[in-house]
Amino acid sequence: MLSKTDNEFLTRSGPGTPMGDLLRRFWMPALLSDELPERDGPPKKIRLLGEDLLAFRSTDGRVGIVEPHCPHRGANLYYGRNEECGLRCAFHGWKFDVDGNCVDLPTSPPESTYKDTIKLLAYPTREWADMVWVYMGPREHMPELPQLELGLVPAGGRYVSKKWQDCNWVQSLEGAIDTAHFSFLHKVPAQDEKTKLEIFRSTSAIGAGQELADRIRWVMDDPRPKFAIAGHDTGLVIGAARKTDSADKYWRISQFLMPNHALVPVAFPGDVYHGQCWVPVDDVNCWIYTYSWLPDRPFTNSEREKYAKGLSLHAEVDLNYVPVRNIHNDYGLDRTKQKTESFTGIMGVSEQDAAIQDSQGPIQDRTREHLGPTDIGIVEFRKLIMGAARALQQGDEPKSTRAAKKYAVRSGGWVAGPDKDLLAVMTERFGHRHGYVGNEYGLGE
Amino acid sequence: MLSKTDNEFLTRSGPGTPMGDLLRRFWMPALLSDELPERDGPPKKIRLLGEDLLAFRSTDGRVGIVEPHCPHRGANLYYGRNEECGLRCAFHGWKFDVDGNCVDLPTSPPESTYKDTIKLLAYPTREWADMVWVYMGPREHMPELPQLELGLVPAGGRYVSKKWQDCNWVQSLEGAIDTAHFSFLHKVPAQDEKTKLEIFRSTSAIGAGQELADRIRWVMDDPRPKFAIAGHDTGLVIGAARKTDSADKYWRISQFLMPNHALVPVAFPGDVYHGQCWVPVDDVNCWIYTYSWLPDRPFTNSEREKYAKGLSLHAEVDLNYVPVRNIHNDYGLDRTKQKTESFTGIMGVSEQDAAIQDSQGPIQDRTREHLGPTDIGIVEFRKLIMGAARALQQGDEPKSTRAAKKYAVRSGGWVAGPDKDLLAVMTERFGHRHGYVGNEYGLGE
Amino acid sequence: MLSKTDNEFLTRSGPGTPMGDLLRRFWMPALLSDELPERDGPPKKIRLLGEDLLAFRSTDGRVGIVEPHCPHRGANLYYGRNEECGLRCAFHGWKFDVDGNCVDLPTSPPESTYKDTIKLLAYPTREWADMVWVYMGPREHMPELPQLELGLVPAGGRYVSKKWQDCNWVQSLEGAIDTAHFSFLHKVPAQDEKTKLEIFRSTSAIGAGQELADRIRWVMDDPRPKFAIAGHDTGLVIGAARKTDSADKYWRISQFLMPNHALVPVAFPGDVYHGQCWVPVDDVNCWIYTYSWLPDRPFTNSEREKYAKGLSLHAEVDLNYVPVRNIHNDYGLDRTKQKTESFTGIMGVSEQDAAIQDSQGPIQDRTREHLGPTDIGIVEFRKLIMGAARALQQGDEPKSTRAAKKYAVRSGGWVAGPDKDLLAVMTERFGHRHGYVGNEYGLGE
Repeated sequence: MLSKTDNEFLTRSGPGTPMGDLLRRFWMPALLSDELPERDGPPKKIRLLGEDLLAFRSTDGRVGIVEPHCPHRGANLYYGRNEECGLRCAFHGWKFDVDGNCVDLPTSPPESTYKDTIKLLAYPTREWADMVWVYMGPREHMPELPQLELGLVPAGGRYVSKKWQDCNWVQSLEGAIDTAHFSFLHKVPAQDEKTKLEIFRSTSAIGAGQELADRIRWVMDDPRPKFAIAGHDTGLVIGAARKTDSADKYWRISQFLMPNHALVPVAFPGDVYHGQCWVPVDDVNCWIYTYSWLPDRPFTNSEREKYAKGLSLHAEVDLNYVPVRNIHNDYGLDRTKQKTESFTGIMGVSEQDAAIQDSQGPIQDRTREHLGPTDIGIVEFRKLIMGAARALQQGDEPKSTRAAKKYAVRSGGWVAGPDKDLLAVMTERFGHRHGYVGNEYGLGE
Repeated sequence: MLSKTDNEFLTRSGPGTPMGDLLRRFWMPALLSDELPERDGPPKKIRLLGEDLLAFRSTDGRVGIVEPHCPHRGANLYYGRNEECGLRCAFHGWKFDVDGNCVDLPTSPPESTYKDTIKLLAYPTREWADMVWVYMGPREHMPELPQLELGLVPAGGRYVSKKWQDCNWVQSLEGAIDTAHFSFLHKVPAQDEKTKLEIFRSTSAIGAGQELADRIRWVMDDPRPKFAIAGHDTGLVIGAARKTDSADKYWRISQFLMPNHALVPVAFPGDVYHGQCWVPVDDVNCWIYTYSWLPDRPFTNSEREKYAKGLSLHAEVDLNYVPVRNIHNDYGLDRTKQKTESFTGIMGVSEQDAAIQDSQGPIQDRTREHLGPTDIGIVEFRKLIMGAARALQQGDEPKSTRAAKKYAVRSGGWVAGPDKDLLAVMTERFGHRHGYVGNEYGLGE
Repeated sequence: MLSKTDNEFLTRSGPGTPMGDLLRRFWMPALLSDELPERDGPPKKIRLLGEDLLAFRSTDGRVGIVEPHCPHRGANLYYGRNEECGLRCAFHGWKFDVDGNCVDLPTSPPESTYKDTIKLLAYPTREWADMVWVYMGPREHMPELPQLELGLVPAGGRYVSKKWQDCNWVQSLEGAIDTAHFSFLHKVPAQDEKTKLEIFRSTSAIGAGQELADRIRWVMDDPRPKFAIAGHDTGLVIGAARKTDSADKYWRISQFLMPNHALVPVAFPGDVYHGQCWVPVDDVNCWIYTYSWLPDRPFTNSEREKYAKGLSLHAEVDLNYVPVRNIHNDYGLDRTKQKTESFTGIMGVSEQDAAIQDSQGPIQDRTREHLGPTDIGIVEFRKLIMGAARALQQGDEPKSTRAAKKYAVRSGGWVAGPDKDLLAVMTERFGHRHGYVGNEYGLGE
C-alpha cells in the first residue's frame, strides 16, 4: 500500500517529475527500426514520457528525434519534407538536421547569421537490437547503451515486437515481475493433460521441453510460491520457488533491470529467452517492447511467424501496434470459454495480462491495495526505483547508468534441491549468481 | 428560479453531497431482474450515483452489488469468475461472496487469518417487482422496501422497462410532475378527430375509455390548468384541473413519491396505472425505470408487445436500454411531420419528453428560469426534497423512510364538480384522500 | 514572439475577454444566406465567439439570431416551431420574435402582463452580400455594415463560400497576410513549365493573364520578398516586393481590414478579386468565409462550378461546410506526390493553408516563435489589433467602426519600377494609395 503522494511519485513521468527525471537518465526504445524503413521517408509522430516528438530517418540513414514545431512560426514539421539530410518545414522552408541544427533559413538573406541562433530540440538516438533508442536527459549524464544479451547475439537470434497498452507503465511492469499470478490468470482449467499441454505449447509463455507437463502442473498446483530477492548493479533477481512431486523446488526466476525492463522466468537451457521494456507514452498509456532471443541459433521462419501472429508473449497487433483484442472490445472475452477452456475466457497470454493490468485503472490506486507474501518482488522493485528517483533529486546519479555491460543477464527456470537458496540456484542454472553472461560476449567479468 | 448554490445542491448526487446522502437513505432500482438472467452468469458493470459497481447473480440466486476493484492489487473483478457462491478475481484468485466477505485467499497459506481482515464493499440488495433494488446508505438506517402497488399485484399484472437519459435526473423528474406541458409537447395539431384519436390511442400516455376524445380536447384547449398540491407521508399529490364542456373540471392528478418516483395522472378506473423512477447514473445521466400495472387482471401479450415496441410511456430501446431515437440522432426529429402531424415532429411520448428534458442542458441552469402558476408542482417538489436533504444534514432522518407501506398509492384522472377541492376529488376517485390502497393488500390503513 | 499573457490576449474571444469585446464592436458573418433557405424553416444551431446561438428565418423573411434556451424552463428552442413570425417553444408554447420579444405566453392568463417582462437575448442581424451578418456588441455602439466591394457589385459578380478550420482564428489570418509563404507552401517542384502552369491555372490562387508563367517563377525564385506596410482608416496595406527578370519589382499587395478580414494579393487588372473573413467559433475553431468578386462582369457558370469544387482559394467542403480533406484525414497528404508533384503532397491551396495553420496547434504558442524580416506584416497586424483592444478597454471605440465606406478597397499584384515605394505602387495599380474604390459606387471620396 502506498500513500497517494507516493503513488503519484511512482507513476508520473512527465517533464519535471522525479520519476520522469530518473527515466530520462536512461536510453529507452522509441521505435522499432522497422517503423522508419526508408531514408528520406515520411516523418513519424511519436509520444514519449508525455512529450510529443517527431522521428525521421535522414538521407544518411541516421534517425532524428526532435520536437515537432518549427521555431519560426510553430508549424508542425510533420508536414515538412525529409530531404537531403534534413527536415524542411513546409511553411517557409526552414530546414533542420537530425541534431537539430538549422541548416537552411531561406527567408533570411544568405549572408545572415540568424540561422546559427536557431536550434530545434533534438534528442540523441542510437539504433541497436532492431530498435531506435533515445536519450532524453541532460547530455552530460548520457550513459552507454544497456548491453542486453538481446543486442549481443547475431541478428538472426532475436525477435522484437511492440504493443500499445491502455494503462500506466508501472502496474504493467509490476504484473510482469509478479510471477505468482501465473497460477491463476493464465490457468487452463481441468481438462485432459494432452489438451492442456497443446494449449500451453501453442499459446503460452511457458518454455518447451520434456518436463513441460510437470512444470505446468506444479505452477497450477502451488498458488503460493516462496519468493526470494537479490539485488545487483543493474536491478533485481526475483525468484519464486514452488513445490514439485519430490522434495525439490521448481524455481521461476525473473529479473528487473533499471528502470523499465523485466526478463521472463520460463526458459530452461535451450529454450527461448524473453524480456520486456515498458516505455511511458504518457501517464495512462505505454508501449511494451517484447523481445525474444536465442543465444545459440537463429530463429526459424516458423518461430517468427508464430510470434507475428501473437503467440507466446507477443501480442496480435494491427498496423499501428495496437492489440487486436484490447480494452475497446473487452479483449475478446468469451464467457462460455471462461467456463470451459481458460481461467479468463481471453485468448493469449499477452492479452490476459493486458486485460488485468488495464483493469487496475488508468493509474492503479495503490492506496487501497493489500499486498501479501507473494508480492515482495513488487515491494522491492518500488523500493529500488523510488529510492533511485529520490537519490537523483539529491544529486546522486543512478549507479546502473554506469554499469551498461551488467545488463547482459539471463533469467529462467530450474529445478533444484530443497536446500538451495536463490543465489545458489542462479549459479547452478546460469553459472553466475546474477545470471551475468557478458563474459561470453567479450564484455569482461 | 434557484441560486447557483441551490441548483448544485438540488442536482448533485455523488458520494458526500447532501442530495447524494438523501438518495442513499432509500432503496432504489439498480437493474431489471432480467439483466442478470443466470446464476453464475457474467458480472455486469453498473454505475449509480456516480459510483462504479459490479452486479452479479450468485450460485444461490442472490444478487451481489459490489465495488469492482479487488482489494489485493486493484484488478477489476469484472474479469473474474462468478462461480460457487462468489466472484473470484482472475489475477490471483481472491474470492468474495455477495456480502463482500473474502471466502478464499489462495496466495496466503490456508492457516493464515489474513483473509478475515479483507472486505469488499458490498451494498444490500433485494429483488422485488421485477427489479433488483440496492441500498447504498448507512446500514443502521436501512429502511423497508417501498410498498409500491406495482410490487403488490400478481406478477402478471405488471410491466417494467428502463431507458437511458442524457441529462440530470431532477429536470427529467420535474418534467413528469409538470402536467401542464401535455397541452403542448404531446399535442397533435389540427386534424380530423378520428385521426387524432388513433394517434393518441396508439402512441400516447393518455388513458383509454369512452370519453377519450373529449379528454384530449380538454387538455389541448386549456393550456393553463389550475394546480393544487397536498403533502402526505411519502410525498405529494399534485392535481391540475382543466375546463370541460360543462361547469365540471377535468382533473389530472400525479404523485411525487420520495425521493425519485412519480406516478402518472392519466388512469381512469379500469385503465393501466403508470409510474416512473429516476436513478442517477452520475450528475448528467440517469436511468428511468417506467412501470405499468393493473390491479385487477394480468397484461395481455398484445399489451406487453406494444410496450416492448415503445408505445405508451415506454421507450423504444436497444439491447443496452438506450432509446433508439436519442440525443445522437436528434430523436428522429422530422421537420415535415412537425408541420403536419405533431407539435414536435418526434415520434413517441417518451422520446418527446427525452428531447425536451435533455435540451435543458446536461444540468438545467435554474438561475435563468422564469416559473409561473403552472409550475407550482415543481416548486413544492423542490421545497420537499431540498428540505429533507437539509434536515438530514442536521441529523433528521427522512420520515418517508419509516412509511414504506404508504408508497401503496395511485394517481390518475377524474371529472368532478366545480366546487370539489383536490382532496375531495382524490376521495371521490380513489376512496382515500391520498390515493392509498395498501389496505386492499393487507398493509392496514 | 509574444509573452504568454499577450498570446492569450490576442487569441481569446469569449464573452468578457478584451479581444472578444473588440470583435463584438463589428458586424461579422454568422451564416451564408443559403443556410436559411426557407421562411419558417428549421432553426439552425450556430456557435460564434464561444456563444451557442440559434438562427432562424421568420415568416416575413427576417433572420433572428437568439440565445437557444427558453426563459421559462430552459428548454432549447431548437426543438420549437418556427411559425407565424416567431419561434415557439415545444415545452409550453412560449413564443418569441426575431427581436427576442415574447409574443405569446399561453401558460399565463391572457390578461397577464407577465409576458411583457420576459425577453429572449437576440442580436441584430443584416443580410448583405449573400451572408447573414450579426452584431453581438452593445446596441449604442452598433456601426454601419462594412462596405466591402464584394457587397457593392451586382449579385452576379460575387461568389461566397465558407469552411470550417480546426485552429484559432488569429494564426489562420496571420497565414493569409504572410504572403512570403507562397514561395514554399504552395510551390510546385521542378517540372516542365507547361505542367507547372497547368497546375497553377487549375488549382491555385495566382491570377491568370499573359505573364502568369513569369510571375510564378518570380515567386518561387525569391523566398525573401521585401515587405512594406501602410496603415489607413480600416486597416493595413501590406506589400511584398520580389525580384523580376529586370530591375523592376513584382509586388504582391494584400490588405488587412479590421478586425478579421484579409484581401488576397494576386489580382492583376481584369482578374478576380478575393478576400477572406475569419469568425471564431470558439478559441480553437473558426469559420473562414472566402469571397471572390468581379467589378466588371458576372461570374460564368463554369467559374462558379470550379469554385464549388474547391479550386482557387475555395475549399472542397461537405454539406456541413467541413473540408473534405481535413485534420482527421491528414488533409489527404500523399507522400509520393510530395516527392514529385507539390511541396506538401496536399491537394488544394486552401487545404495546404489549413494543414499548416492547424499544425501550429489549436492555439499557436507564440512564446516560442522566431520572427524575421518577412514577418513584419504579422507584427504590424498584432500591433494594430492588440492596440485597438487595449484602447477599447480604456474606453476608446475603434475608429474603423466609424469608417464603414473605407472598407471598399482592393488588393492585388503589379510590376513596378525599382524606385517606386508601396504607396506609389498602390496609386499606379489602383488609382488610390490605399486601393479605395468607394467613389465608383457613390460612397464619396
